Amino acid sequence: MSVSRVAIIGLGLLGGSVGLAIRERLPECETTGFDCDPLVRERARERGLVESVCETAQDAVRDAELVILCVPVGAMAAAAADLAPALADGAIVSDVGSSKKTVGETLRAVLPQAIVIPAHPVAGTERSGPDAGFASLFHNRWCILTPDQDVPEEAIGRLSDFWTALGAKVEIMDAAHHDLVLAVTSHIPHLIAFTIVGTASDLEEVTRSEVIKYSAGGFRDFTRIAASDPTMWRDVFLSNRDAVLETLGRFSEDLTAMQRAVRSGDGETLFRLFERTRAIRRSIVEQGQDDARPDFGRADH
Amino acid sequence: MSVSRVAIIGLGLLGGSVGLAIRERLPECETTGFDCDPLVRERARERGLVESVCETAQDAVRDAELVILCVPVGAMAAAAADLAPALADGAIVSDVGSSKKTVGETLRAVLPQAIVIPAHPVAGTERSGPDAGFASLFHNRWCILTPDQDVPEEAIGRLSDFWTALGAKVEIMDAAHHDLVLAVTSHIPHLIAFTIVGTASDLEEVTRSEVIKYSAGGFRDFTRIAASDPTMWRDVFLSNRDAVLETLGRFSEDLTAMQRAVRSGDGETLFRLFERTRAIRRSIVEQGQDDARPDFGRADH
Ligand SMILES: NC(=O)c1ccc[n+]([C@@H]2O[C@H](COP(=O)([O-])OP(=O)(O)OC[C@H]3O[C@@H](n4cnc5c(N)ncnc54)[C@H](OP(=O)(O)O)[C@@H]3O)[C@@H](O)[C@H]2O)c1
Ligand SMILES: NC(=O)c1ccc[n+]([C@@H]2O[C@H](COP(=O)([O-])OP(=O)(O)OC[C@H]3O[C@@H](n4cnc5c(N)ncnc54)[C@H](OP(=O)(O)O)[C@@H]3O)[C@@H](O)[C@H]2O)c1
Repeated sequence: MSVSRVAIIGLGLLGGSVGLAIRERLPECETTGFDCDPLVRERARERGLVESVCETAQDAVRDAELVILCVPVGAMAAAAADLAPALADGAIVSDVGSSKKTVGETLRAVLPQAIVIPAHPVAGTERSGPDAGFASLFHNRWCILTPDQDVPEEAIGRLSDFWTALGAKVEIMDAAHHDLVLAVTSHIPHLIAFTIVGTASDLEEVTRSEVIKYSAGGFRDFTRIAASDPTMWRDVFLSNRDAVLETLGRFSEDLTAMQRAVRSGDGETLFRLFERTRAIRRSIVEQGQDDARPDFGRADH
Repeated sequence: MSVSRVAIIGLGLLGGSVGLAIRERLPECETTGFDCDPLVRERARERGLVESVCETAQDAVRDAELVILCVPVGAMAAAAADLAPALADGAIVSDVGSSKKTVGETLRAVLPQAIVIPAHPVAGTERSGPDAGFASLFHNRWCILTPDQDVPEEAIGRLSDFWTALGAKVEIMDAAHHDLVLAVTSHIPHLIAFTIVGTASDLEEVTRSEVIKYSAGGFRDFTRIAASDPTMWRDVFLSNRDAVLETLGRFSEDLTAMQRAVRSGDGETLFRLFERTRAIRRSIVEQGQDDARPDFGRADH
């Protein structure tokens, strides 16, 4: 077995899903957990997200071979400092944070004695909290590890086996590159969705109830993304600032070009872009990263 | 019965869905149909989208009390001109186009003798063509009618009853207001989705295969929208230019403010917006315009 004792810090959507996935797919692996919120700990006990929910982070990590921080990116430093005194020699410390460069720097600074292997399972929903997690969250999704060069191969192999056992496909990547890729595939889409939902709700000429009523024309998909946890996303943008600003700059340029095409009635330019974007969709469905059913089966047919 | 003979011009996603919905919910209503593409006509016959698929638009509309144009917005003029000579006295001519002001003007100009009631069922998927339609597409969705002031109440009532029978909820609205509301809830979300998918596929630092692989972090929802029919959407943007540009201007301003907040590390501003957008999502789910299951049940749990 890759690891036999795992401690999960933060028992929300990600932490809970890791715990439930271990129970289902690595039943011999012992799990402990901690969350700073007593109500979350209570709910985690009721749902059995981990075998033992501890009252302190130190109790949770004391015997763990692998500690996974499942807290918002901005809480990584505090969560790591909290558990530091009880961390076992040779323990691997990992996380699931959505940005990787600053998280890696933070964990290495706060836990100089630990083997730090930052990780990001590219899987999620717009829900959060101890009731949101489910065992199959990582199934067929990618988990990106961003270890520094001096991390022992053996440790990387163990973490990699662990995620593979939970159903994920593992990729090793440079942290800075991860942050750029995810800025494109996740962070900017979220920022845009949050923004357009805000724009729509601020218009004077269109009421909020009209926006809600007629949301089935495309808007509702953006609101789903824009319902994601505010704390998590604030932290993502603050921690991945450079890549986010870089990508946002490109998007703004492209949007200006589209605006110009609409203004000048340049149907050819619009058509060319729209045709190109279809091909990408096709590849995503082919590679199993989305469901091809129209409307994801929302339309009940 | 509201209407007993309906002709459907254009037998793609919308036309096919109207036909199938009639068969299911108004079985006594006779349906004829026409599409300019012989292959579409053939497929429409095989699927039984309408009772009788005709070889000309004129044959299709000859006895119809209600003609519904289900062609791209830019093809409305040609489709209307095509059927004009055979249109029965007192027939209602309607459509399903996604923009309403220019469509209404076009239909009234080409068919001065007809009772024109433009309509837009706010329901769709990213698929198109004769295989895409299904009977429940309009179920619990809004259908917006934008009749001119001089249209007889009785005709509006009949069309309204027709859409209600197909499962939709009907609303009467001024065409210009419709175009502004839909610019916000549908057209701009689509333009943004097309644009960001284009941006992502053009980056040099991030490969296309990376974009596809890690799309589960949010991007895939945009690609779904950006897989919609290029012709349809080109026509929508060209025909609703003013409202699209107006709304796009607001969005760009708001995006610039977000960009500034990220650049200056202003977490407070980001958090406030993100919290606000959650509330809108909640209302959409409450009002049955979307499914609350995380990931629409895509995560197989
Ligand atoms: N949601 C997604 O789709 C997704 C996808 C991939 C990765 N991620 C990453 O996963 C991480 C967790 O996200 P999530 O969606 O699971 O959030 P979540 O459901 O809100 O869970 C996070 C939990 O961590 C707790 N917490 C905060 N600070 C803590 C500390 N110092 N010590 C112990 N517990 C602490 C929180 O308690 P309080 O609420 O009381 O603060 C909360 O219960 C984030 O870094 C995020 O970037 C999320
Ligand atoms: N898709 C959505 O989500 C959605 C939602 C609400 C409203 N709408 C509106 O519904 C309308 C139809 O969209 P759709 O999605 O159903 O498109 P679609 O699946 O592509 O079907 C349109 C059909 O009309 C045919 N056509 C084009 N010009 C014609 C003409 N002059 N005479 C007869 N047939 C003609 C097309 O044939 P060719 O392909 O050979 O041109 C095609 O088979 C558009 O106005 C759109 O704005 C769409």
